[in-house]
Amino acid sequence: MLTDGVPLTDHHCHGVVAADLDRPGFEELLGEGPRGSFDSSVGLAVRRWCAPILDLPPHVAPDEYLTRRAELGWREVSARLLRATGTTRWFVDSGYGTDNLAELTGGTVREIVRLEHVAERVIAESGTPATLFDDIDALTTVFDQIEAALRDRARYAVGLKTIVAYRCGLDFPLVDAPPAAVLPSRRLTDKHLLGWLVGVGARIGAELGLPLQVHTGFGDADLRLQRADPLLLTDFLRATAQTGLTVMLLHCWPFHRKAAYLTHAFPHVRMDLGLTIPYVGHRTSAVLAETLELVPFRSLLYSSDGYGLPELHYLGARLWRNGLGKLLDEWIAEDVITGADAEQLITALANGNAERAYQI
Amino acid sequence: MLTDGVPLTDHHCHGVVAADLDRPGFEELLGEGPRGSFDSSVGLAVRRWCAPILDLPPHVAPDEYLTRRAELGWREVSARLLRATGTTRWFVDSGYGTDNLAELTGGTVREIVRLEHVAERVIAESGTPATLFDDIDALTTVFDQIEAALRDRARYAVGLKTIVAYRCGLDFPLVDAPPAAVLPSRRLTDKHLLGWLVGVGARIGAELGLPLQVHTGFGDADLRLQRADPLLLTDFLRATAQTGLTVMLLHCWPFHRKAAYLTHAFPHVRMDLGLTIPYVGHRTSAVLAETLELVPFRSLLYSSDGYGLPELHYLGARLWRNGLGKLLDEWIAEDVITGADAEQLITALANGNAERAYQI
Amino acid sequence: MLTDGVPLTDHHCHGVVAADLDRPGFEELLGEGPRGSFDSSVGLAVRRWCAPILDLPPHVAPDEYLTRRAELGWREVSARLLRATGTTRWFVDSGYGTDNLAELTGGTVREIVRLEHVAERVIAESGTPATLFDDIDALTTVFDQIEAALRDRARYAVGLKTIVAYRCGLDFPLVDAPPAAVLPSRRLTDKHLLGWLVGVGARIGAELGLPLQVHTGFGDADLRLQRADPLLLTDFLRATAQTGLTVMLLHCWPFHRKAAYLTHAFPHVRMDLGLTIPYVGHRTSAVLAETLELVPFRSLLYSSDGYGLPELHYLGARLWRNGLGKLLDEWIAEDVITGADAEQLITALANGNAERAYQI
Repeated sequence: MLTDGVPLTDHHCHGVVAADLDRPGFEELLGEGPRGSFDSSVGLAVRRWCAPILDLPPHVAPDEYLTRRAELGWREVSARLLRATGTTRWFVDSGYGTDNLAELTGGTVREIVRLEHVAERVIAESGTPATLFDDIDALTTVFDQIEAALRDRARYAVGLKTIVAYRCGLDFPLVDAPPAAVLPSRRLTDKHLLGWLVGVGARIGAELGLPLQVHTGFGDADLRLQRADPLLLTDFLRATAQTGLTVMLLHCWPFHRKAAYLTHAFPHVRMDLGLTIPYVGHRTSAVLAETLELVPFRSLLYSSDGYGLPELHYLGARLWRNGLGKLLDEWIAEDVITGADAEQLITALANGNAERAYQI
Repeated sequence: MLTDGVPLTDHHCHGVVAADLDRPGFEELLGEGPRGSFDSSVGLAVRRWCAPILDLPPHVAPDEYLTRRAELGWREVSARLLRATGTTRWFVDSGYGTDNLAELTGGTVREIVRLEHVAERVIAESGTPATLFDDIDALTTVFDQIEAALRDRARYAVGLKTIVAYRCGLDFPLVDAPPAAVLPSRRLTDKHLLGWLVGVGARIGAELGLPLQVHTGFGDADLRLQRADPLLLTDFLRATAQTGLTVMLLHCWPFHRKAAYLTHAFPHVRMDLGLTIPYVGHRTSAVLAETLELVPFRSLLYSSDGYGLPELHYLGARLWRNGLGKLLDEWIAEDVITGADAEQLITALANGNAERAYQI
Repeated sequence: MLTDGVPLTDHHCHGVVAADLDRPGFEELLGEGPRGSFDSSVGLAVRRWCAPILDLPPHVAPDEYLTRRAELGWREVSARLLRATGTTRWFVDSGYGTDNLAELTGGTVREIVRLEHVAERVIAESGTPATLFDDIDALTTVFDQIEAALRDRARYAVGLKTIVAYRCGLDFPLVDAPPAAVLPSRRLTDKHLLGWLVGVGARIGAELGLPLQVHTGFGDADLRLQRADPLLLTDFLRATAQTGLTVMLLHCWPFHRKAAYLTHAFPHVRMDLGLTIPYVGHRTSAVLAETLELVPFRSLLYSSDGYGLPELHYLGARLWRNGLGKLLDEWIAEDVITGADAEQLITALANGNAERAYQI
């Protein structure tokens, strides 16, 4: 397959759970809820593609898979699956869970700084929110501290990220100044505060050449999916079009065609399918085809969004290789593209576009 | 084909018209409007798949089809088409049209109670709405009568159903108490009243173990399709997640990927493609493939939503068998799934998931 | 291929640039922005399909393509590409750019009158907007002049068109009378004024039998794509359903399934894929298949929306032939449709539906 052996830059992922997992624990991380997530496209893909990495035949039963997984231990399983991805660079969102990809793979790890995580830590360290948000001077100080903390963290990072989709939705207001009054909360949900925070991230990102990743599309049950529609970012994208910022739309499904439109309309916008790929399994080829209808070839990146289970990192890579490989084989057979152009396209999507966007 | 011979539980359908139909009458029921609905995917499917059941060659011209249909008479045509579906259980929404599936097929028929239908009948029997809605005591009595009537009907039913999508849209408010004042109308359109009614249905459903079916996605021209987007139910689904209620999203197209996300995020939510399948015809395989990207395999059910024309019941079944069979043949050929797992999946979708959800 | 040689009616397009173009100029018109638009589906399609029309091998490099293009000169290139479309009738939206298709092709050219263009010219000729919009009598006079100008232009036209999607979105208010006060502007953006203008267009169209084209779905970066969702037209379509007006939804992607629903629900609504086809390239077959799930076969038309580059006109035609031909070959092979019915369908989509809708 044309995509075999091409090294990947996984521009958005997380660490893996450093513990052995029972079946409910494994299924909880694989799907939503502790039972039954093997009965799904991602479950079929684990049995088909991960089993051989653990020396098992393809399509092995879930319990046999988990028995073998326990036998090898999480460290060996993680090392095998992560290395089998063929990823040479991992850009890790450290705002959630552990970061152990460097030690398990020997690959290069770079950090993505999550805006909300940094801001919430500054607020937590500044005293109780109830006191804090009553006092306008204290509030101003905290806002300054948040920006300072972000600038500090950004110096070592390769990119920034916002999960504003989970908090107030992607139609946050574009505000230059932080709000004078906000509801006290350790968890940022105020849309004006979030709008300001994303604005600060956009400003720092433009200054330092750090792309700003934005969660869009599906995720877990905390989300109102309609508020994660990337089209809600249109005003933000217009406002940042000439600032030098690069915006990365993550995941995008089932709005991947809309996201592709945004990358077509705005040259500073890029996208990936991230989390989508492990979950849609064998349908990766079809979802990639829909995305490639409009996305400029320079504007599509690879990520796994792997979190917790190294199976997700591996499926991200394996299914991306299978899906893109199958699609391009068809395109070559139907004389849509030449073999040479297809190879160039694969390299761009696998790591070239990330190298250019993240300036590495 | 793997799907041949598998008995179906049609968990959402209606009776057929007990009369012979001329061409305008037939086309009116097949599409929207009295002319031309043969020139469409569903029209091609009638000619291709229903014609042989009436002893005609495939692809026969519409007029020949209707001549033969008249010759056999509606009763014989209905019995042939309905029996050819291979359906052993019919769950009938009796709120609309006649219910004659038991006499025509000999299959088991169970009732789905439509909330709006019961409520509107209680209101109609309580005097003129204008008087009624002026008198707060009378109104309270009517609300009590509506709940009592629903409880009474629910005792013999296998499920409940709401068509709130047609009335105020799926973003109805979540209200515990009925409103103190509503506009007088025999046809319920007040969103607070509807929100209360759906809440009562959800409560009764949770208590008695009756799934609540919700019309989502496309239907006839009475609909504002954007208000039938199942994502508008997110708050309702959160509110009912821990109550024991099962929610069934019906039809879903063109929002079937969003519906699949909801079934992935909420274990108490199920979906079907219902009405979609007869209408998209040969595209059933593609729409099923999009749905199976994310829907847990336990959360997808079969229905035809057949109404009026037994052709719709038959196409629901025939195209579902063709489409799912074709899809799974491809998956087996591409080593996505084993033959044994594919057979289990078919049984689950055909009737197993309905048996578990409806506790039969 | 079944679609070869069928003459096309291009019911929505524009003229071509009457000048030779350098690479930035060419890429600007091909995509959004002056660099890199060759690296996309439409870029691959130019190299694959347009190159041979200029005596080059398929898949030639962009610079070679542009060198040959310059060598032949814009007039020869345009004549070759436009003639190679097999289009016999061009309906040209003259509100934007030059109209030179008649002289370049010898085909029949008819005019589509753009409502906003006429209205803005009348306003510009009536004095400064600031003065005008302060004086209620002057304003009334201008509204009368706009309607008179539209009626005058309509006498020679084959259809009307609105780009209200670009101005205030498709959820414009339905208003019978023009507003008493509007913000002064040479560019119409006031939603009440636009609502009135579209209403005038709908009235004139119904009276004179001129279809009203409505831009929906993707376009350039001026657009808020979510405001171009054709479902936002639902109230307008209900209001015009019985007036005799025909409404043409243009382009529609990525809302083509929703547009197909509208054509299914409302017999007076038609749609095309227009601009979509050159841009999605080899995916035309897939997008057509999604559209044909629900669109009545009488309600789908052909257009290229070609603008500026004759490559877009040619790709519109070539990819439509390829995509529809491939799809129908598959349908015939899978016994979905007979060869005779497929040929009828092609003729309807290529020109028959346009002939009927535009009464030519």
